[in-house]
Amino acid sequence: MNYKLAGGFIALCLLLLTNAFAQTSPVEDGYRLWLKYDLIGDVAKRQAYARSAQFIASSGTDPILKTATRELQLGLQGLLGKAIPVLTSAGNRTGGIVLTVTTGTDSQSLAPEGYRISANNRTITISGKTSAGVLYGAFALLRQLQTQQPLEAISLTSSPKVQFRMLNHWDNVDGSVERGYAGMSLWKWYELPERVDPRYRDYARANASLGINGTVVNNVNASARFMTAEYLQKVAALADVFRPYGIKVYLSVYFAAPKTLGGLKTSDPLDPQVRKWWADKVKEIYQTIPDFGGLLVKANSEGEPGPQDYGRTHADGANMLAEAMKPYDGVIIWRAFVYKAADTSDRPTADRFKAAHEEFTPLDGQFDKKVIVQVKNGPIDFQPREPFSPLFGNMPKTPLGIEFQITQEYLGFATHMVYEAPLFKECLEADTYVNGKGSTVASIVDGSLHRYSKTLMAGVANAGSARNWTGHPMAQANWYAFGRLAWDHTLSSEAIAREWIAMTLTQDRQATSRIANLMMKSRDIYVDYNTPIGLSRPWSGVHFAPEPWQNRSSRPDWTAVYYHRADSLGLGFDRTASGSNALAQYRPDVRRQWEDPKTCPLPYLLWFHHVPWTQKLSSGKTLWTELCTRFYTGADSVRWMQQEWALVKPAVDPAIHADVSARLATQHKEAIWWRDAWVLYLQTFAKEPIPAPFKKPDRNLEEVQQLVNIYLLR
Amino acid sequence: MNYKLAGGFIALCLLLLTNAFAQTSPVEDGYRLWLKYDLIGDVAKRQAYARSAQFIASSGTDPILKTATRELQLGLQGLLGKAIPVLTSAGNRTGGIVLTVTTGTDSQSLAPEGYRISANNRTITISGKTSAGVLYGAFALLRQLQTQQPLEAISLTSSPKVQFRMLNHWDNVDGSVERGYAGMSLWKWYELPERVDPRYRDYARANASLGINGTVVNNVNASARFMTAEYLQKVAALADVFRPYGIKVYLSVYFAAPKTLGGLKTSDPLDPQVRKWWADKVKEIYQTIPDFGGLLVKANSEGEPGPQDYGRTHADGANMLAEAMKPYDGVIIWRAFVYKAADTSDRPTADRFKAAHEEFTPLDGQFDKKVIVQVKNGPIDFQPREPFSPLFGNMPKTPLGIEFQITQEYLGFATHMVYEAPLFKECLEADTYVNGKGSTVASIVDGSLHRYSKTLMAGVANAGSARNWTGHPMAQANWYAFGRLAWDHTLSSEAIAREWIAMTLTQDRQATSRIANLMMKSRDIYVDYNTPIGLSRPWSGVHFAPEPWQNRSSRPDWTAVYYHRADSLGLGFDRTASGSNALAQYRPDVRRQWEDPKTCPLPYLLWFHHVPWTQKLSSGKTLWTELCTRFYTGADSVRWMQQEWALVKPAVDPAIHADVSARLATQHKEAIWWRDAWVLYLQTFAKEPIPAPFKKPDRNLEEVQQLVNIYLLR
Repeated sequence: MNYKLAGGFIALCLLLLTNAFAQTSPVEDGYRLWLKYDLIGDVAKRQAYARSAQFIASSGTDPILKTATRELQLGLQGLLGKAIPVLTSAGNRTGGIVLTVTTGTDSQSLAPEGYRISANNRTITISGKTSAGVLYGAFALLRQLQTQQPLEAISLTSSPKVQFRMLNHWDNVDGSVERGYAGMSLWKWYELPERVDPRYRDYARANASLGINGTVVNNVNASARFMTAEYLQKVAALADVFRPYGIKVYLSVYFAAPKTLGGLKTSDPLDPQVRKWWADKVKEIYQTIPDFGGLLVKANSEGEPGPQDYGRTHADGANMLAEAMKPYDGVIIWRAFVYKAADTSDRPTADRFKAAHEEFTPLDGQFDKKVIVQVKNGPIDFQPREPFSPLFGNMPKTPLGIEFQITQEYLGFATHMVYEAPLFKECLEADTYVNGKGSTVASIVDGSLHRYSKTLMAGVANAGSARNWTGHPMAQANWYAFGRLAWDHTLSSEAIAREWIAMTLTQDRQATSRIANLMMKSRDIYVDYNTPIGLSRPWSGVHFAPEPWQNRSSRPDWTAVYYHRADSLGLGFDRTASGSNALAQYRPDVRRQWEDPKTCPLPYLLWFHHVPWTQKLSSGKTLWTELCTRFYTGADSVRWMQQEWALVKPAVDPAIHADVSARLATQHKEAIWWRDAWVLYLQTFAKEPIPAPFKKPDRNLEEVQQLVNIYLLR
Repeated sequence: MNYKLAGGFIALCLLLLTNAFAQTSPVEDGYRLWLKYDLIGDVAKRQAYARSAQFIASSGTDPILKTATRELQLGLQGLLGKAIPVLTSAGNRTGGIVLTVTTGTDSQSLAPEGYRISANNRTITISGKTSAGVLYGAFALLRQLQTQQPLEAISLTSSPKVQFRMLNHWDNVDGSVERGYAGMSLWKWYELPERVDPRYRDYARANASLGINGTVVNNVNASARFMTAEYLQKVAALADVFRPYGIKVYLSVYFAAPKTLGGLKTSDPLDPQVRKWWADKVKEIYQTIPDFGGLLVKANSEGEPGPQDYGRTHADGANMLAEAMKPYDGVIIWRAFVYKAADTSDRPTADRFKAAHEEFTPLDGQFDKKVIVQVKNGPIDFQPREPFSPLFGNMPKTPLGIEFQITQEYLGFATHMVYEAPLFKECLEADTYVNGKGSTVASIVDGSLHRYSKTLMAGVANAGSARNWTGHPMAQANWYAFGRLAWDHTLSSEAIAREWIAMTLTQDRQATSRIANLMMKSRDIYVDYNTPIGLSRPWSGVHFAPEPWQNRSSRPDWTAVYYHRADSLGLGFDRTASGSNALAQYRPDVRRQWEDPKTCPLPYLLWFHHVPWTQKLSSGKTLWTELCTRFYTGADSVRWMQQEWALVKPAVDPAIHADVSARLATQHKEAIWWRDAWVLYLQTFAKEPIPAPFKKPDRNLEEVQQLVNIYLLR
């Protein structure tokens, strides 16, 4: 190499590195997510890996296999610092990586999308029954390098526990995202189909690396636009990008589309013209997108149209769409998030908690086999902590998928650090006792308990147009954790956190432990200052500011007081037999745990009981003192989070570190705000002083309310 | 240098360059705007520059001067490929650049923010009366290098022609941007003040490089939130970032804030309590932001509250705020965009065109000297082509600022290439004849004609959170052109285009000419397929799709038919004495040009006349034939734009080239859509065939309407 040329080239490199719109724009901006592929610093390790990755052997024209090859090549090039040649066949060479789609004995035990990675005779083989399996294996192999695991004797076999691993985007046609806190929608409808943003592909890469194989690109509060030829062309352009990554596109459906678009007089699912309209429409969809995934439906929920508008059932609606879908591979995903029953407040036992169970369990067995019913993890709505939905276990003949919310609608938007894996796991590991002990929600969702023909896990996406995809840099971990758990719900929250940290933030051992510890505690800390001991839904309209005093709305179950029921006697929603009796929707073993306020675990106490202020709890403290302890300890814990985060500064990229530090400062401010709002408001009922050692808030209730009111102004 | 080290470092550089989230994420993503500072390729030129830039001499602690020094250093480092030392004084060294704030003879002829760049004795001196002047000079010097002008005998003197050079952001508290097509708001209110996005500073850099010295950060349809202590703290954090770049922050005001926030019974500007509330509020603002710029008000316009709610005038409202502002440096900017009068449709001569003139000219002389009235360039609303607003010239005692719209609300959003400098210039160079020939709008706006004490040019921003700031890469040129014209309206559109191309796209001479030609023709092409011969406002509700048939709305002037008045006889709005007589608002010399349909220039014809379909126009064609010719030629011209753009491919970054190519494809599709919508609709009145050589559209009117209707669905 010419020395002088080298020198000049170095100067050019330096410029490009330091001059990305100047000193203010850091090289590390979070865009690369967990697929950073930075050069492995440990030379010995890098050389060891390089000896095992001297080439990639892969042949054939399958687009997904080509993707696997390219991704592996790309990742290895970054991690190892050199280009890896791709051969069509290893021949008799060793020391490389062979990708192979095979239905041989080696892969017989695999699920269609599973993979096996094995080392034999100095060759690493990634095999799967399908090219998608190989793709997931390629990412799994890269993950081994990214987390610095040895390769020599690698032997990994993995199959997804759930068949449909999906993101749900609540994205609107105008580019806004319902409950989105990371910029606008990723999908630029006004540019599609002509302009295909390069970012769509990076989105597909990130998802494929986790095993996510489906994405619903539009809001469940669906625009009918997506059922028009004009928009199907746009969606098809996205599908073209996602296809080589093994990801299918799904659409949310506006149930009244036959009227709105078709000009029909009705959208009654039993009307022959309506049925024909949908059959024609689904045919048109498949002509445009041959591997279309299916339809997601929010019907007769929160004002959306649905079959009940015509006196029909959810099953009637779903089955009509299933019939239209019959000639094709797609599925109908019907959401169980309904609570119409709850607003008939004349029933003394009315309770939004019970609504989904009341509406759906009578329909068990009536749904077409193409239908999956998608159930939110809890009975209300993605609260920081909820008991599992009583639908799980109670619809053995209907495949139930689970819907988690990754975007932090009720978890502090993009300024609170809340690692959600423990929340997801808490629900998945909850025991329904449907077939006796061990009948976990996970065993229902993964189909093992009821032998469901279809299994699904959906996450409401937190990815938007923000440069770092998720707004809060730490929220990337929630996307990551959802994807990993959708593949394998037995992974531990901490293992996932450590994996993500190693791939994204740092490989420093001490810093990793510290950050993992922070992440693992973050959700309980949030619950403590936000909704401890089973409180829920104290939000203002935008779900941002505390508003436990909110008592007026067009529906009683859209107020805050509906949920906490604070009065001079006590706090909490009586859901025992003396109250709404929602507990009756659970199996006796579950009910018994929760129905006695003395044995009910504290985290769920106020979900099920109206507890006197002076009642002594299992913690030994009175309700009032326990509440205050939680609110104050929770807010103080954010200070601890700040301190812990400060300690990892040397191990984390400066721009990312500063970003998270600033957001933690906001979180601390808002945690105190939440604490003050709750204790000052509840104090008006409890009539008790703030217990020692806690100091009473610096502001009074009116001042807190005035601050909240700012966020309610247009 | 160690050879081996160099080799290793090169490998690392290569990785960083090729691995920015992989091959899909191009290094050139438009983020750097026109401040790219890439290494000058021509070695001889680079060396010549380097001889003149061996050091920078700058002293003092003035933050803006420090900014000037740092920006110069940064730019030179990029352009010349080496670090330039900064000295506190040149001493007796030559061959460097000296920055100096001086009130000496050298700068006496300069405006406060003007600059002088001179070369003397092998030293280049950038001087100004203020540090802001030096900052603008530093950017001007960099521009010389970016556009490869010689430095040796440089002698540049420039003063801004307008005092307040501002962007108006129509950004809402929820992060949405009214009429924004480039992502979300730049301002992340939920993160501020704790987290200060690095992007705020890059925004300030871009504006300072153009001489923009003020920014209104919130929508004129203003949220009262911005008048609260909570939000003022957030705004203050922005002001802290902008201050070293010479940029002041302004806020839009919700006129009813005394009621909404202050709990007063009224917001009547003559009420003493209201006056006190505003005085206290302004005091609070200045305690929080000592160099706050001022308030912008949209009052009694499109449903916003205002002084007329209490029987007071715009002057009463503005003067009340001016009184509150008295102790401070700030200004009150009061918008003249009102058209209440137009909806009293019982007046036969009612015409929204006339509304601003009718409401404001009677108030001339009544406004406090702190007030500037901000007038949109045309009488209606940022149409692709409008005659100048008749307010210009008719308020000699009231400083009138001009408001242009940079964001392409009526110019095809982010998928149509429309270079706006010719639009801005057309208005600025229009002759009002107020003091005889040569009384241009520019001479009113720059204060020379009426000796205004304050001068202002505002542009409604097109910058958002999109990675490349403006969505369409070519729309960056509109931000650039607005800023350059606000500084010096005598610059030619083409010179600005060439400057921008050299700094942003390419320095290839042939490609530059081709792109400049494209840009210069783009606006006329857009007008041809969109609103030729003086048509206006044929938009659907979202201002996206063609809807000339729209005839129902809550107000007549919110329909399309109100504007074009198509009937069996002809087309156009009669604004002569036989019609609304809006022409009477112009001086006789202007009126005479426009009032005779035979002499009225074709671009304005249908603005002022209802012309029979078969009328022969000055072009020799009938109205119908001329219209068809424009629509068809316009749409065909987009095909020509595509061809021209294809030819510059070798000279432009591949990612940017592909991006623009895709958007041109959309533009072509939509241009044909516009053409078809108009000709098919107007044909129902004209009852004439499509004239040869044009072929009739492939679709019928109903089909076009159905397509439009898609975009009206929720």
